[in-house]
Amino acid sequence: MYTRLLGRSPPSSRPAPQKNTVRFPAMARLVMKFGGTSVANIERIRIVARHVKREVEAGHQVAVVVSAMSGKTNELVAWCREAAMLHDAREYDSIVASGEQVTSGLLAIVLQDMGIPARSWLGWQLPISTDDAHGAARILDVNGEEIVARFGQGEVAVIAGFQGIHLPSGRLTTLGRGGSDTSAVAIAAGIKADRCDIYTDVDGVYTTDPRIVPKARRLEKVAFEEMLEMASLGAKVLQVRSVELAMVHKVRTFVRSSFTDPDAPELKTAGDPPGTLICDEEEIVESEVVTGIAFARDEAQVSIRHVPDQPGIAANVFVPLAEANINVDMIVQNISAEGFTDITFTVPTADFERAKASLAGVRDQIGFQSIEGATDVVKVSIIGIGMRSHAGVAARAFKALSERGINIRAISTSEIKISVLIDAAYTELAVRTLHSVYGLDA
Amino acid sequence: MYTRLLGRSPPSSRPAPQKNTVRFPAMARLVMKFGGTSVANIERIRIVARHVKREVEAGHQVAVVVSAMSGKTNELVAWCREAAMLHDAREYDSIVASGEQVTSGLLAIVLQDMGIPARSWLGWQLPISTDDAHGAARILDVNGEEIVARFGQGEVAVIAGFQGIHLPSGRLTTLGRGGSDTSAVAIAAGIKADRCDIYTDVDGVYTTDPRIVPKARRLEKVAFEEMLEMASLGAKVLQVRSVELAMVHKVRTFVRSSFTDPDAPELKTAGDPPGTLICDEEEIVESEVVTGIAFARDEAQVSIRHVPDQPGIAANVFVPLAEANINVDMIVQNISAEGFTDITFTVPTADFERAKASLAGVRDQIGFQSIEGATDVVKVSIIGIGMRSHAGVAARAFKALSERGINIRAISTSEIKISVLIDAAYTELAVRTLHSVYGLDA
Repeated sequence: MYTRLLGRSPPSSRPAPQKNTVRFPAMARLVMKFGGTSVANIERIRIVARHVKREVEAGHQVAVVVSAMSGKTNELVAWCREAAMLHDAREYDSIVASGEQVTSGLLAIVLQDMGIPARSWLGWQLPISTDDAHGAARILDVNGEEIVARFGQGEVAVIAGFQGIHLPSGRLTTLGRGGSDTSAVAIAAGIKADRCDIYTDVDGVYTTDPRIVPKARRLEKVAFEEMLEMASLGAKVLQVRSVELAMVHKVRTFVRSSFTDPDAPELKTAGDPPGTLICDEEEIVESEVVTGIAFARDEAQVSIRHVPDQPGIAANVFVPLAEANINVDMIVQNISAEGFTDITFTVPTADFERAKASLAGVRDQIGFQSIEGATDVVKVSIIGIGMRSHAGVAARAFKALSERGINIRAISTSEIKISVLIDAAYTELAVRTLHSVYGLDA
Repeated sequence: MYTRLLGRSPPSSRPAPQKNTVRFPAMARLVMKFGGTSVANIERIRIVARHVKREVEAGHQVAVVVSAMSGKTNELVAWCREAAMLHDAREYDSIVASGEQVTSGLLAIVLQDMGIPARSWLGWQLPISTDDAHGAARILDVNGEEIVARFGQGEVAVIAGFQGIHLPSGRLTTLGRGGSDTSAVAIAAGIKADRCDIYTDVDGVYTTDPRIVPKARRLEKVAFEEMLEMASLGAKVLQVRSVELAMVHKVRTFVRSSFTDPDAPELKTAGDPPGTLICDEEEIVESEVVTGIAFARDEAQVSIRHVPDQPGIAANVFVPLAEANINVDMIVQNISAEGFTDITFTVPTADFERAKASLAGVRDQIGFQSIEGATDVVKVSIIGIGMRSHAGVAARAFKALSERGINIRAISTSEIKISVLIDAAYTELAVRTLHSVYGLDA
């Protein structure tokens, strides 16, 4: 997997990091990605073209990745469902990939009309090769030779996002929802771009959701690992897979606003534009202990009471769930009392009923007393690469939540994050408290 | 051109023609073509699928060719124009080809849902290779190997019409408006189909437009040459290029209604379904002298008065028009009187002003006195392969028109047709008169 991409080292002609400035090179190779609302109609596509023009005029080599017009993918998906609830994923992919085919061509036309040499590229034309997991394909390789050759002639490449081709069968594939982010990062890796700019409806990554904590502030830089946790834990700025890919290939990914005036003076000066750079840890000189607070409301808690505590019991519980394709997240097993224990874990809310049914089916085999559960729970997470070298980070969180009277139902931790499961009613209070405790307030 | 196609002989295992019955083989290889209104939504696509199912259950091998949903191509074309009035035809093709991509996938899904093995094929996947005349490309070759191999496994091929690929550049092409008919015929030739069924909003080809002559009747069979004249002369049932292609490759093309109940008993019996077969002259045993009356309202007449009658004068008149890409149709040059002559010809109405301007520019060179013209004219044509062996066909027409007081402005003839240019006000009268004179009334 990623055979060609993996062999590559990150661009080396990068200035050494100083303080936390982003320091973009004066002339560079850029990938610019625009989502569905940015290409919703010709008027919006013209604004995208002006963003592209600005970068071309600054001397950059540019590949643009576009989504389908907002609403179009939903329309195509609805037709597939109307045609048959259970439909061939290969046909689905061929149908749904048509959305990006339209926008890539339209943007190329608009760019040409502005005097900028440009041509569209469909996934199969480069090609962007993927595996055959239709509807959720993984990119195996991006062949950027032709577009790089054309950069030399000043041509902008406009690439249909979200799509690829399974070369052995010659059939179109799509990467799944939000896949255009992944396309953009994979293309950036494939053409050794200096930066992958993700234009979106927010101007960067925030310490937490500003709708909940008005004092949330935009981060200048976030390490790949942190962003991966944030994306996994509920921050919706970037698709998880695109962050994974950026981390593996060290693609500097810059989240910025698509709603700014493309010709705003501050975007044309040598200074850094507003946004958040997702980058290698090494590029972040003064990292905070905690970078952000994330939360996810779509988790449900399942508890199995009075389970005989004997070897193999965890396997008996979790193998049936895995076989039912249910992702289990936080797992807590209390110490045994009189040969019995309780097991608590979380599953996506959408899988809650299925998980309970699946366990009820193996009740005799496992020999537990009862299944309990709750869907009115939320997982709040504290993320920061700095906590690797700082002790007491978790203790501060537990103390602060306890002082507010917030009960912790379960805890899970990794090297750079601490997650707690609490009652959903306390979401805002918990997030604000933690945001303040770790000094993230603006 | 047509390199691969040209080498093929027509299917030879055809029953000898008897009388004018169509005599379709009990088990055959069919191409079925459905236009935009037939695939306008999922409900309509289900009806198309039932037509396909009927043929599959009858034991036929089936390739289906579909257009885009009605209205979709117009929407895509409008976006291209909004993006830039003068736009790159290569981008236009990539954008517009997406319409058939959607319907081919949807029909494949619906067929699978009915239990019929099916898969969609895009032009580039077969491939259908074309030249690089983007927007109006010509098919060079259809590679039908893979779909023929899959016929053996009972799979229906659902092919996106109207599109192909220019192989040297790898870019998508489209065949121009109505190109799905041409796709269907080219595919039928490529896979050596026994018949190409064009499902349309009429149930066949009529002796003339039934809206003008209620006594017009459906023809059982029409020779390729006749159909070519009819299509060129205003009958809108089939696109001219598709008839040319059918004639060159001897593709038996059957025009039939898409509005009949797909499961109607008469379509399942061994007898011939209602429709018109466009076929080789040899298959038509009892041909009429005149097959049909066509008319075209979109012609304009241009006359140049008092032109010095000297060698090279025709070239001086018509070369500038050819250079301006204006198609000249009927040409009449009167005999010279006192060294001067008048030249009359017709051009498409859309080119009328351009034609006059073009001639005005070379007035000094040609030395004529004045340009006159009229757009309120109509060209009425009498078509019939039988007139090759019958004398006096034209004379009867002239006499009948004269008896009705209809003045003939110009005449042009070929081996199998006679066209007259008359005042537009007499259109209906002339068509009805000729229809009756040649015994075509039902």
